[in-house]
Amino acid sequence: MSDVATAGRRARGGGGGAARRAERTGISFDTARFIERNIPNFEILNEEALQIIEWNAETVLEEIGVNFLENPGALALWKAAGADVRGERVHIPRGLARKLCATAPRSFTQHARNPARNVEIGGKSLVLAPVYGPPFVRDREGGRRYATIEDFRNFVKLGYMSKWLHHSGGTVCEPTDVAVNKRHLDMLHAHMTLSDKPFMGSVTEPVRAADSVEMAKILFGSDFVDQNTVMTSLININSPLTFDSVMMGALEVYAKAGQAAIISPFIVGGAMAPVTVAGTLTQVLAEVLAGVAYSQLIRPGAPVIFGAFVTSIDMNSGAPTFGTPEAAHITYGAGQLARRLGLPYRSGGSFCGSKLPDAQAAYETSNSLNMALLAGVNFMLHACGWLEGGLVSSYEKFVMDADQLGTLHHLAKGVSVDENGQGMDAIREVGPGGHYLGCAHTQANFKSAFWRSDLLDYKPFETWDEEGARDTEQLASERVKKLLGDYQAPALDEGIREALDAYVAQKKAAEPDAFI
Amino acid sequence: MSDVATAGRRARGGGGGAARRAERTGISFDTARFIERNIPNFEILNEEALQIIEWNAETVLEEIGVNFLENPGALALWKAAGADVRGERVHIPRGLARKLCATAPRSFTQHARNPARNVEIGGKSLVLAPVYGPPFVRDREGGRRYATIEDFRNFVKLGYMSKWLHHSGGTVCEPTDVAVNKRHLDMLHAHMTLSDKPFMGSVTEPVRAADSVEMAKILFGSDFVDQNTVMTSLININSPLTFDSVMMGALEVYAKAGQAAIISPFIVGGAMAPVTVAGTLTQVLAEVLAGVAYSQLIRPGAPVIFGAFVTSIDMNSGAPTFGTPEAAHITYGAGQLARRLGLPYRSGGSFCGSKLPDAQAAYETSNSLNMALLAGVNFMLHACGWLEGGLVSSYEKFVMDADQLGTLHHLAKGVSVDENGQGMDAIREVGPGGHYLGCAHTQANFKSAFWRSDLLDYKPFETWDEEGARDTEQLASERVKKLLGDYQAPALDEGIREALDAYVAQKKAAEPDAFI
Repeated sequence: MSDVATAGRRARGGGGGAARRAERTGISFDTARFIERNIPNFEILNEEALQIIEWNAETVLEEIGVNFLENPGALALWKAAGADVRGERVHIPRGLARKLCATAPRSFTQHARNPARNVEIGGKSLVLAPVYGPPFVRDREGGRRYATIEDFRNFVKLGYMSKWLHHSGGTVCEPTDVAVNKRHLDMLHAHMTLSDKPFMGSVTEPVRAADSVEMAKILFGSDFVDQNTVMTSLININSPLTFDSVMMGALEVYAKAGQAAIISPFIVGGAMAPVTVAGTLTQVLAEVLAGVAYSQLIRPGAPVIFGAFVTSIDMNSGAPTFGTPEAAHITYGAGQLARRLGLPYRSGGSFCGSKLPDAQAAYETSNSLNMALLAGVNFMLHACGWLEGGLVSSYEKFVMDADQLGTLHHLAKGVSVDENGQGMDAIREVGPGGHYLGCAHTQANFKSAFWRSDLLDYKPFETWDEEGARDTEQLASERVKKLLGDYQAPALDEGIREALDAYVAQKKAAEPDAFI
Repeated sequence: MSDVATAGRRARGGGGGAARRAERTGISFDTARFIERNIPNFEILNEEALQIIEWNAETVLEEIGVNFLENPGALALWKAAGADVRGERVHIPRGLARKLCATAPRSFTQHARNPARNVEIGGKSLVLAPVYGPPFVRDREGGRRYATIEDFRNFVKLGYMSKWLHHSGGTVCEPTDVAVNKRHLDMLHAHMTLSDKPFMGSVTEPVRAADSVEMAKILFGSDFVDQNTVMTSLININSPLTFDSVMMGALEVYAKAGQAAIISPFIVGGAMAPVTVAGTLTQVLAEVLAGVAYSQLIRPGAPVIFGAFVTSIDMNSGAPTFGTPEAAHITYGAGQLARRLGLPYRSGGSFCGSKLPDAQAAYETSNSLNMALLAGVNFMLHACGWLEGGLVSSYEKFVMDADQLGTLHHLAKGVSVDENGQGMDAIREVGPGGHYLGCAHTQANFKSAFWRSDLLDYKPFETWDEEGARDTEQLASERVKKLLGDYQAPALDEGIREALDAYVAQKKAAEPDAFI
């Protein structure tokens, strides 16, 4: 722990004091609790198909193996665990990886600095986090342009103010105006100060993962971070079957610190995995088994998530395609595999290939969001704001998607058949040919009975026309401006704020800017 | 059978001759076969919830009863069957309606004049039919306006040319420039001559249902119609619990003729049914039980479909809302109830409240389409083209939605785990760090592996931008023009064509125009 981190901890007095103060003094925006499903999962694969895929994944690990590149420490750990290591190729005997995975928790709590925003990841939960990674942003008036740190901060603010978003995410866009070797500091600082929702750490270099842990210790206190999970970070696998030293280095930092990692194959089907669904699921399972097993070799019990980022490909052009039936098949199937492995599951998102937040974007996104809910996803990165195949964070689509996430909350509630749910008194009261709007049962239930969009148009045609005949993008553009205008930061202990500032300043001063 | 119908039958020589000739000589557009699901249904209700709803529905029928208005014949039939009839109110003893429903077929074939377009309705099938009923149309250049018979014909042509649409539908829009008492003739004529897909009959008056049967006899031959189902028509129930004489009169005509009817509660939740999901399901089941039972009193074995048209309501404004979670709950639940009753199931559609074919329209539509597939729907009316809460048939949305219907076909295929599906040879061939695009397995499968839109944009940003930065509505507008420009009618025996023309002319001449 650095001196600055220690200073920060002293300033705030340790424990959960900052969070409690935030509750007392800050402006707080209404955020829904993470989803707890009261509906079944959709299980597309039967037992035979699952067993075939699980058998084949073990065959892949044993016979073909996986590459751990430029990572002699990993090779040594694998050898000691009983794997057959040849060069950088690790052949994992049938059953070994699954056995190692058994120490990973089935579910874990990620703490937020506001404890009311803590999320449970695993079991029947679904935690929603925004888009991750785009180098560009788009808005209705400014068009498409490189993202800046100001954009980044705006998206953190929008995420903080989005009722149906439980998590602040990570790289909500790439702040391309900040040096590559320093932007993680500004990004973490934004998540920690502009929001009180849980967030993700940096993974682009192991030292940046270490910075993430240090800054988290300033925010939460060193002991608290030692004993609790306060970050969930994204560790992509270089599919097929390759674990590079940068990502594994970040994983090692987080696992050692007891911080969570999503171990996630990154697959454009037909390019990084077989062109068939069962083949892709086989490779995904093999990769996750190897990655999660490795996390447990680093630290048994380290919290991890079974990740599956999967799209299909347009075989005419090679472009990745989104919201497709094949992606749905894989997402449903991977959920079943994750549950059988006893791991939390990450997949889904507001995926689309469209260049604009138009009908294509919405079709593709709705296809993906609905499938992710029914697939049993526990952590959904990219749940709002994704545009143009992930190249663009869209301001308008962020609030459009975030509004749609409300439907997932209501869907997940399931159907109540208690006396009020049965509504027999209402049917008796109204009778044939009657009208329910005025009856007692309707009056007692109307406020909570139906989900209602905060964005979409429900007006009569004439009113809508008189008010300018606005489409969804226009409504969303106005909502973005309103939200950013209304934004007020959650309260944060001044000492912690100063310690975070100082840490970022010290780290930035310590080395020259790098832009690659 | 009228003289004109007899003439028509003579002209064509009976049997399936017209269809065979159409196959030999006509331009034929590629239409996918109706969907046969190879995936499970999503079952949201558990056994206890289902039993509660089924028990309550029988209580509603026995205790509250249903109204059969201005229909002494129906009351007499119910009395004879053992119901307790008081005035126009029919109290149906527990178990009677379900027992009467048992003679309805679990599945039936609706014949098209081109036998390759026949559809199976029931079991694991899903048949897709276009939007039904809007008085307005909208297109990108002409805006929103009253629909005409020219619009009607255009939508029939678009339906004929849509690969993923199996059915020509019914009132694809209301031809408001034709007299109310005659427009059914022009509509039937359009479906029969401009398309060779199966279609629906008129239900707005019993005599118009009789005209539908007569015209079908001209097209198919009288004996063929007597022995086969060639129309599936929409019989709405006046929820709550009311069966009016117009709709029941049409049902009586169709049931006697062995033609199929969708018995369909029409429910805006909170207005025509209880504001809770289980309460709405109870009423839906009671209404369908009564309606289907009545169809079986008319003619045991008459083909019928368990219908459920359900939307929720915006409690702030009273506007119906679409693609909502509550509609999904009801659609999933009603599917379970229909399967337990052993009846084909109609629900779902391209529902939306948006005024434009924009992102709102697409979010709401995708929510509905996906849910309908997983709910086990067998017949989906309104599968494309619905806009503005059903007030508008949209040209652009018709082709946009029709394209999305392709995703349902691919989703329904499920996951193959045969040797090719497993793709182990591909994983072996490519190995860690390799690339699948060039491998033998990919080459052998790439044409059929992934669904591909015929409409949406998959281009790189720069190409898309240079080509005019078109949104989905613009792409769709161009597709509409292309399809209508390319349209060629399927071949039809000249004698049949003349007989249909003559029937319409004779009927139109026989009475003055009515415009209400």
